[in-house]
Amino acid sequence: QSSVTLSGIVDVNVQRFDSGSVGKATMVGNGGLSTSRLVFRGTEDLGGGLYAGFWLEGSINPDTGEGRNSNLNNQPSGAVAGTAGTVGFKFDRQSYVSLGTKSLGELRMGHDFIPTHWNSIYFDPFNANGVARAGNLTFAGVTTAPLPSAITASNSVSYWLPANLGGVYGLVMVAAGENSSNAANAHDGNLAGFRLGYAAGPFDVAVAMTRTRNTASATIGDYTHANVGGTYNAGFAKFFALYNTVKVKLSTGDLRKDTMEVGAHIPVGPAGRIRLSYAVLDDRSAAALTNANGSARSSNDVRQWGIGYVHDLSKRTALYGTYASMSNRGQAAYALSGGRAPLPGEKTTGLEVGIRHSF
Amino acid sequence: QSSVTLSGIVDVNVQRFDSGSVGKATMVGNGGLSTSRLVFRGTEDLGGGLYAGFWLEGSINPDTGEGRNSNLNNQPSGAVAGTAGTVGFKFDRQSYVSLGTKSLGELRMGHDFIPTHWNSIYFDPFNANGVARAGNLTFAGVTTAPLPSAITASNSVSYWLPANLGGVYGLVMVAAGENSSNAANAHDGNLAGFRLGYAAGPFDVAVAMTRTRNTASATIGDYTHANVGGTYNAGFAKFFALYNTVKVKLSTGDLRKDTMEVGAHIPVGPAGRIRLSYAVLDDRSAAALTNANGSARSSNDVRQWGIGYVHDLSKRTALYGTYASMSNRGQAAYALSGGRAPLPGEKTTGLEVGIRHSF
Amino acid sequence: QSSVTLSGIVDVNVQRFDSGSVGKATMVGNGGLSTSRLVFRGTEDLGGGLYAGFWLEGSINPDTGEGRNSNLNNQPSGAVAGTAGTVGFKFDRQSYVSLGTKSLGELRMGHDFIPTHWNSIYFDPFNANGVARAGNLTFAGVTTAPLPSAITASNSVSYWLPANLGGVYGLVMVAAGENSSNAANAHDGNLAGFRLGYAAGPFDVAVAMTRTRNTASATIGDYTHANVGGTYNAGFAKFFALYNTVKVKLSTGDLRKDTMEVGAHIPVGPAGRIRLSYAVLDDRSAAALTNANGSARSSNDVRQWGIGYVHDLSKRTALYGTYASMSNRGQAAYALSGGRAPLPGEKTTGLEVGIRHSF
Repeated sequence: QSSVTLSGIVDVNVQRFDSGSVGKATMVGNGGLSTSRLVFRGTEDLGGGLYAGFWLEGSINPDTGEGRNSNLNNQPSGAVAGTAGTVGFKFDRQSYVSLGTKSLGELRMGHDFIPTHWNSIYFDPFNANGVARAGNLTFAGVTTAPLPSAITASNSVSYWLPANLGGVYGLVMVAAGENSSNAANAHDGNLAGFRLGYAAGPFDVAVAMTRTRNTASATIGDYTHANVGGTYNAGFAKFFALYNTVKVKLSTGDLRKDTMEVGAHIPVGPAGRIRLSYAVLDDRSAAALTNANGSARSSNDVRQWGIGYVHDLSKRTALYGTYASMSNRGQAAYALSGGRAPLPGEKTTGLEVGIRHSF
Repeated sequence: QSSVTLSGIVDVNVQRFDSGSVGKATMVGNGGLSTSRLVFRGTEDLGGGLYAGFWLEGSINPDTGEGRNSNLNNQPSGAVAGTAGTVGFKFDRQSYVSLGTKSLGELRMGHDFIPTHWNSIYFDPFNANGVARAGNLTFAGVTTAPLPSAITASNSVSYWLPANLGGVYGLVMVAAGENSSNAANAHDGNLAGFRLGYAAGPFDVAVAMTRTRNTASATIGDYTHANVGGTYNAGFAKFFALYNTVKVKLSTGDLRKDTMEVGAHIPVGPAGRIRLSYAVLDDRSAAALTNANGSARSSNDVRQWGIGYVHDLSKRTALYGTYASMSNRGQAAYALSGGRAPLPGEKTTGLEVGIRHSF
Repeated sequence: QSSVTLSGIVDVNVQRFDSGSVGKATMVGNGGLSTSRLVFRGTEDLGGGLYAGFWLEGSINPDTGEGRNSNLNNQPSGAVAGTAGTVGFKFDRQSYVSLGTKSLGELRMGHDFIPTHWNSIYFDPFNANGVARAGNLTFAGVTTAPLPSAITASNSVSYWLPANLGGVYGLVMVAAGENSSNAANAHDGNLAGFRLGYAAGPFDVAVAMTRTRNTASATIGDYTHANVGGTYNAGFAKFFALYNTVKVKLSTGDLRKDTMEVGAHIPVGPAGRIRLSYAVLDDRSAAALTNANGSARSSNDVRQWGIGYVHDLSKRTALYGTYASMSNRGQAAYALSGGRAPLPGEKTTGLEVGIRHSF
């Protein structure tokens, strides 16, 4: 059947984490290079330059067979932790219908990545995956748990610029929390964002911002994730830079975390590349926000660095290894992706070696 | 691989509801024209006119990426509301194996639509989908929540008449609640039904009835959904009529709701059609059944009308818009599909504009 | 798309169980001949004899449309019973990435069957499916509920011998519970196992053992499932023999259950075969383990026999019928697959007639 394309990725690895006083752990994880996924997609030529399309993509955890949850309404109430072993496959990454033309751009409606997330993928040398991803620092909210719409938004409508703008690209998105206009939290989960970029020759740069409404409390509030980043391909290496600001307007004061990451991909022979990154999280929260021990939250800074190697066995299959080291300062207790959070102020490291196969 | 066909529908829309005192809401919904779904199916020619086949079809909510639940045993105990964000994809619509011949008909075993539901789809101008569907009124039980086997039945065996009967078509179905013979509710969830129709030239008419056993209480009991309907294609318009009776034998008295719907599809140019419907729910429950305020339940009547337009961009892709208005009388508090229920006796309206893409 | 193959099985049947004092039940079940499933798989030739591959396989319950749960960590905490109607499809059977060569063997990482399970499939005349499977007796732990890693293991790495060893075949597997090294249950869920077999001409024999760590309590502990079995194809019949030992080191004493099964497939004409089996469970638990009524657990023995007939309508489609009878002795209360457990010491029987269709 020509109207649907079935594809996906299975990426599994063996991991070793050291989470300080919390202990070490050997694990079999997934998605160290790319998120494991199953994708059903297609496009239809409607004539006159018009096309329609659909995209249904869900993540999978091949180490356990489970799926992942999806936030329904971009609010804390929109997702609960599934009970162990019960989480089914669903289209938690992207599920939308689209309509577009090559010259006018594309309209999408459904569940999709927030505009800011594309920068998190493309301008992180670890592409938002694995132990060394910048997302260890940037997806978190008040705790180290991700904000409700940290990565995707439900109930979204987005417009994508066409590809013929001389290197300029971008999108705007709005999404609905779907609360009743009479409710106290009428605007919660409403979201708006954009991404605007420019790619030419060796350069690719973009800026993005996504703002989600939520009634202020001690754990949530209106929050904004803004980032700007880019890559420069110098041939002997491709350089990455990404700056993120996450701000949450809590009832107790503004939470703000700025994360700067720089890194590179260095080709090694025809099929290999070294990946490097260094990231610094600077907590710039209001003085009113304090840790459990009374210290200022703004002292909860982090240094993270990562090094990895990817070896392509083919266009579809790669072997990889990544090492990441994260130093929590103050009362920070961030965790590496897949690992356990250490105690506040402790260091944690992680190593993973795996296979990524695309189909 | 020729033995499996993969197909589906992604239908997403933008909605605006007014639920009276409960408030207004802007939403991104799905299935305004056709239920979003993913389908795996196939048939095998076994020779001598015999064939085997399978059908695995699950609904999807592309606005959030989630799946939908399925009732396991045609009883209230067979399904609970899933916690937000955790509901996985499953084959909640149809999942069966079949064996048949062109001259003798087909046997199906598995999870499938109840006989009555086919009339609800084909003889409703809105095809049992979207804000203006007749199902807003006919799927509900004692509350506005659907009865356990309002749409599908688990553990079913059905026999379908062959297609060579000169326009006569139909099926019979039995399904098991699977309770123990020693249990007080031994027969709960057992279901039996049929559908018999005749299609010739511009006419298509059918009658169906499905009866499900459940031990009588104040909220459930043996219930019957019967309906009769038809379409007549006059060329300048296709007319629809559908009459439904839902009766639930509660321990406190018989609940009965009769719903009459008439409507039409009016072609507009080569690719468009206007859809119209008007539905009246007449609650004819026993006098013993009263509302919370003491009034007779039989005064909980409803008037609903809908108007819509569908524009085919191709055989696979359509744009559509639908408006529905529902007037609850007495203490009725029915809701439009996807919208919030208003307060008892209040009016609610809904508008949705969307894209349906088939693949 | 040539890189992915989509296949599966839909197997549905009508069942009649007699569970003694617990009562009788008529059901529509599934998987009487083969587990209903959906499979996405593929391999890629990487050149030089090397290949990569993936396998994503999830079970389905076509009688209800639901999926099945998966244990995340090979421990009791790794899976809870899903609430009715909510269990989504997931890749609970096999989900792994692989890398191998024809001469050196294959490495797999992900979620997969434990080594012991392959003997449970191939050396049981009922292939670990349906009312008469030996698994009725061998998958159970302290209660009749299956042990956490009775069939599959999460977080596994396995190595498979190549196919060119003159009939010798086998695999070794390790899997991680992923607990923290500082935790009291640091080793829980860690698993190791192997299977080694030899097939030549009419003979096929194999031995396997899988050991899973769990901190000892009254309901769980380190447990081992070991089995040895084989088949001999004499032409007029194929004979089966399978011996299983399940041992759980409870804090209250060692639980041990030995199960011996013998059986045969007898061809009947070109498309039919009779299936026969007789199984005996000998509980050899420590004297310290007693039943609720004070009797020795070691008296909880079982006799089970099964007879069935399979008729192939084609290579892909078969009709089948199976009858099983299980006599629980002492305080044993094992159940036939799909049926309800009888009261301790009671007999239970089951009959199922169904269709299996592969695609």
